[in-house]
Amino acid sequence: MLIVMEHSATQGQVDAVLETIRGLGLTPQPIPGENRVAIGVLGNQGYVDEAPFRDLPGIQELIHVTKPYKLVSRDFHPEDTVVQVGGVRVGWGEKPVVIAGPCAVESREQVLAAARAVKAAGAHLLRGGAFKPRTGPHAFQGLGYEGLEYLAEAGRAAALPIVTEVMRIDQLERVASVADCLQVGARNMQNFDLLKEVGRVGKPVLLKRGMSATLEEFLAAAEYILLEGNSQVILCERGIRTFERALRNTLDLGVVPYLKGATHLPVIVDPSHALGRRDLVLPMAKAALVVGAAGVMVEVHPDPGRALCDGPQSLDPKGFERLMAELRALAPV
Amino acid sequence: MLIVMEHSATQGQVDAVLETIRGLGLTPQPIPGENRVAIGVLGNQGYVDEAPFRDLPGIQELIHVTKPYKLVSRDFHPEDTVVQVGGVRVGWGEKPVVIAGPCAVESREQVLAAARAVKAAGAHLLRGGAFKPRTGPHAFQGLGYEGLEYLAEAGRAAALPIVTEVMRIDQLERVASVADCLQVGARNMQNFDLLKEVGRVGKPVLLKRGMSATLEEFLAAAEYILLEGNSQVILCERGIRTFERALRNTLDLGVVPYLKGATHLPVIVDPSHALGRRDLVLPMAKAALVVGAAGVMVEVHPDPGRALCDGPQSLDPKGFERLMAELRALAPV
Amino acid sequence: MLIVMEHSATQGQVDAVLETIRGLGLTPQPIPGENRVAIGVLGNQGYVDEAPFRDLPGIQELIHVTKPYKLVSRDFHPEDTVVQVGGVRVGWGEKPVVIAGPCAVESREQVLAAARAVKAAGAHLLRGGAFKPRTGPHAFQGLGYEGLEYLAEAGRAAALPIVTEVMRIDQLERVASVADCLQVGARNMQNFDLLKEVGRVGKPVLLKRGMSATLEEFLAAAEYILLEGNSQVILCERGIRTFERALRNTLDLGVVPYLKGATHLPVIVDPSHALGRRDLVLPMAKAALVVGAAGVMVEVHPDPGRALCDGPQSLDPKGFERLMAELRALAPV
Amino acid sequence: MLIVMEHSATQGQVDAVLETIRGLGLTPQPIPGENRVAIGVLGNQGYVDEAPFRDLPGIQELIHVTKPYKLVSRDFHPEDTVVQVGGVRVGWGEKPVVIAGPCAVESREQVLAAARAVKAAGAHLLRGGAFKPRTGPHAFQGLGYEGLEYLAEAGRAAALPIVTEVMRIDQLERVASVADCLQVGARNMQNFDLLKEVGRVGKPVLLKRGMSATLEEFLAAAEYILLEGNSQVILCERGIRTFERALRNTLDLGVVPYLKGATHLPVIVDPSHALGRRDLVLPMAKAALVVGAAGVMVEVHPDPGRALCDGPQSLDPKGFERLMAELRALAPV
Repeated sequence: MLIVMEHSATQGQVDAVLETIRGLGLTPQPIPGENRVAIGVLGNQGYVDEAPFRDLPGIQELIHVTKPYKLVSRDFHPEDTVVQVGGVRVGWGEKPVVIAGPCAVESREQVLAAARAVKAAGAHLLRGGAFKPRTGPHAFQGLGYEGLEYLAEAGRAAALPIVTEVMRIDQLERVASVADCLQVGARNMQNFDLLKEVGRVGKPVLLKRGMSATLEEFLAAAEYILLEGNSQVILCERGIRTFERALRNTLDLGVVPYLKGATHLPVIVDPSHALGRRDLVLPMAKAALVVGAAGVMVEVHPDPGRALCDGPQSLDPKGFERLMAELRALAPV
Repeated sequence: MLIVMEHSATQGQVDAVLETIRGLGLTPQPIPGENRVAIGVLGNQGYVDEAPFRDLPGIQELIHVTKPYKLVSRDFHPEDTVVQVGGVRVGWGEKPVVIAGPCAVESREQVLAAARAVKAAGAHLLRGGAFKPRTGPHAFQGLGYEGLEYLAEAGRAAALPIVTEVMRIDQLERVASVADCLQVGARNMQNFDLLKEVGRVGKPVLLKRGMSATLEEFLAAAEYILLEGNSQVILCERGIRTFERALRNTLDLGVVPYLKGATHLPVIVDPSHALGRRDLVLPMAKAALVVGAAGVMVEVHPDPGRALCDGPQSLDPKGFERLMAELRALAPV
Repeated sequence: MLIVMEHSATQGQVDAVLETIRGLGLTPQPIPGENRVAIGVLGNQGYVDEAPFRDLPGIQELIHVTKPYKLVSRDFHPEDTVVQVGGVRVGWGEKPVVIAGPCAVESREQVLAAARAVKAAGAHLLRGGAFKPRTGPHAFQGLGYEGLEYLAEAGRAAALPIVTEVMRIDQLERVASVADCLQVGARNMQNFDLLKEVGRVGKPVLLKRGMSATLEEFLAAAEYILLEGNSQVILCERGIRTFERALRNTLDLGVVPYLKGATHLPVIVDPSHALGRRDLVLPMAKAALVVGAAGVMVEVHPDPGRALCDGPQSLDPKGFERLMAELRALAPV
Repeated sequence: MLIVMEHSATQGQVDAVLETIRGLGLTPQPIPGENRVAIGVLGNQGYVDEAPFRDLPGIQELIHVTKPYKLVSRDFHPEDTVVQVGGVRVGWGEKPVVIAGPCAVESREQVLAAARAVKAAGAHLLRGGAFKPRTGPHAFQGLGYEGLEYLAEAGRAAALPIVTEVMRIDQLERVASVADCLQVGARNMQNFDLLKEVGRVGKPVLLKRGMSATLEEFLAAAEYILLEGNSQVILCERGIRTFERALRNTLDLGVVPYLKGATHLPVIVDPSHALGRRDLVLPMAKAALVVGAAGVMVEVHPDPGRALCDGPQSLDPKGFERLMAELRALAPV
């Protein structure tokens, strides 16, 4: 930590800070400048707590050099983590994966049709929501456990491992008994108890970035899962909330190469939720792979016009076939 | 709903939209313009689902006129709701309430001292966190049920009803057995299952606005609670996330008079979390009352310099006394 | 400046940084930590240029301790600056000023009527736009110099000093010959050439915060004016752009007490542009004074329903009278 | 325009709105709903002014269906515009262009070296700033006209047309006499007088998106230029300001396919300014072309470590060669 003193700080105020640092068993390192004094804090093994410094007069700013996470950081774990979902490998250095399927499971027929279609076109994993977080309570909330059974059946029928969202802790056991990967949605990225419990289950986790989560918060959320002993975590960029509302969200593709440097956990991209418009999914999915994402997750519905949830952003089977063809064409680059 | 057709939409495309509307048992009302046609949708009792229109060609935009909430709206419930916490009344037309106490319960002594201090200065409700949501798992997570007991004891000792945060569903029963008001934090504003279960408990609820929640989303989140039969909900503005990071968050005081027109539920303001700096709490708390808030919630710690959580924004007992004096001086205005 | 080295930086990389610092005539101060090394840079008189460090391997981050401005900072100029507009004093410790008048000058009659009305109600300065920045070129762009003459006449008639916006450098001389204070609008806050030239004119300047300007950028923009020898600058918070679009902008009142600590220049608040709704102007204007603003600027139109620009946010004369009465009632607090 | 009445609006209030619409020579079209009445406004040729409706009681919302621009819209001009800079064609259907060169012209040698390097690697246009907008006045502001001469010489030497920024109106004539394309920077996107004057010059214009400009504002800014009779405008996405500050800006690549549908003007992408980090420029430049951008603009400096401006985001000649090679490899996709 670096403590920047005010321009007008007195020597007595500086001394009080030095003494406080020593009192914590740490070593102060004053850096006298022309305009103000700064004091480095040495000897800490991790994040230094701000508390003891807060009420000391004369302090202008506390700058943390250590991050609030450690297990997810490449600094301490330089090798890529490969997450195994069913038999499918997801990792920075692996062949990119495509996760596809309907936003919500709406019926047995719908999810079976979707599974067949995405399998035929070459998807690696099947997605589908049985429990749906919706802005208002009057919208369709998902079929629940019934939907989960349909999804599981569709996954078996198409021989695709399945990814599905969990929203509450008491669902975990039952969902984990059939799902190959547990998704934590953007709105639950800082539902810390859910993160802890998901971490204890021991299944691969797909963690979506919160709508206004900084990358530091995103990585710190993943740290909750890893701290429970589970490092099988896939991070997913799905668009952030900005002042621009012409599109549903702003897909923040620059974070993919940034996170590649910062963490060993693989990052995939969900262009469907980010853009909210079918015609933008194809170009943005390609861009995601070009910037190095470990995979993409796209919504596919057998009949998007009748989707109960997020229809305007869902591809139909033909559209998905085309997407797969174009993604394959990217392989050489 | 209003459907805006593209400039280049053909008559056939317009006809297909008209037919679809009629197929839903609704009435289309075409509005031919010079540049493009728009079509009003009449006869709906609530939110019109977009799904049937999504794949129709020639549509430029779907504009919803009906909001995704109804129970929280003043349109359908013009009279102010007064929430009763213990014996304390919270409502737009009521005397403003002051909720005060430590960010986190840290020890029996700390919360007892805080309770005595805030009571002496005139606070109406005692706050204190037993379960703390923290960005990273390495930070202090609260004392849990032990903290809850200390808080309950402090409330009894000072004769103050207590407000405390719940983070997971399986805590609800035990927390509700001692707390007078259940707080749902900003990070859980769209933890929809928690909202539903909190709604079923039947205790007053303090719902904080999510860090990047629009007012529509905020009200729709409250709608989840009201739909379970509980309209004893207090809304709390606590600062939003913007591009500006010099202060912790941007306190959005303009929403107070805005929400006064939009909802019958009372709105209070938490300047401590919003600003993150003790010296800004006092002026912003005063401003909150001046714009009409039904109350304020402020952090008070017997010794902020040793706080385990959010110390820099906590007032000490003397600072809180001064705050109360200045708030009282506002009463005539 | 503080240079934070990467966890994996070698001693050779650290040495290269030390040598580079010494090569600039500055003094390096290494701060060895458990996880990484940081290096303080001492001896600089101002902002240290990043350039020489950019390509050195092993550097994780460069943290500036010195700000990109100096003249506007309270560190170097602790006493409040009082800006004198006509005979009216604007400053942190002064009686709050009220600047009022129409958004745009629309006719001789309109601005005369507005001037009389705001004078009668007790305003101190008259505002009115002759040159109007509008999002699209098809909207009313202001009456230009004709409007300026009307405004000047109205100011004389009502004995009120006038404030008006300048948009281009070649307007400066003529506008300055009649205006008592030159306004630089939010969209021009980083029109650096305009800032420089405005600084050279020697008239008081009202500088509005840009729609997405950080406080550091806001102060650095003012620094451009002060560097030309003109410290008669009033800063104006007018709402920032955030994800929330229910209101026109988010009025960021927390910056008022924050800036009071950071700069000697007075800060006023424009609630009319910030909120975009007449009914919110009154409560937010009161809140601005309560948090310590040196004044407020509000739009008043003799007949807001017929305003060519920003009618929905303009008060009518009766509304302004009420505002003045309520602001006066705040004086004791 | 659509006028949405309040739930509680009386018939008299509805009638007043109908009458006002008729008074403007337009045709009202009431759309009675279950919860509220909406009224369509028919017969307008363009944007309907809100002013006459602002003070009418009972109105909840005014929704514009017509946009504040027309000339830039594909609705009224379906064919792609091809901008010709020197002999280089820039357009949606054209071969993507690469604009490269130093952020700022720092010396004759520097820009000559940069020009040679980018030409050798295959760039189509040379960029370089003679006039530099900088956050604070203490930073390097560019060499001015001296820099312009060096840039012109470098362009001639390398046989590359040149693109350079103009910051003030009185620079226009002189800059236009040597530059092939005039750049308007992000901070000046709403400097409307500059836009008008740039439009009158008759040279191709490169207009950068403002840091927090919505797409509607971006297109409306371009409309200012087209309205002066100049449709040779290239739009440039360069990253927007969001809550995330780990990277300099958030590159908003989704706008490229979105704008392709909305406007006939070509859109290019500047990944250097957006990301602010050299290592992210390459992947993001590739992504820009994959999503369909008409070109990219990248910063290249012969010796980025000694750059006076934006060094950390500048490629060196070797890095640029690699970028060109990777962009070429994308051609088949």
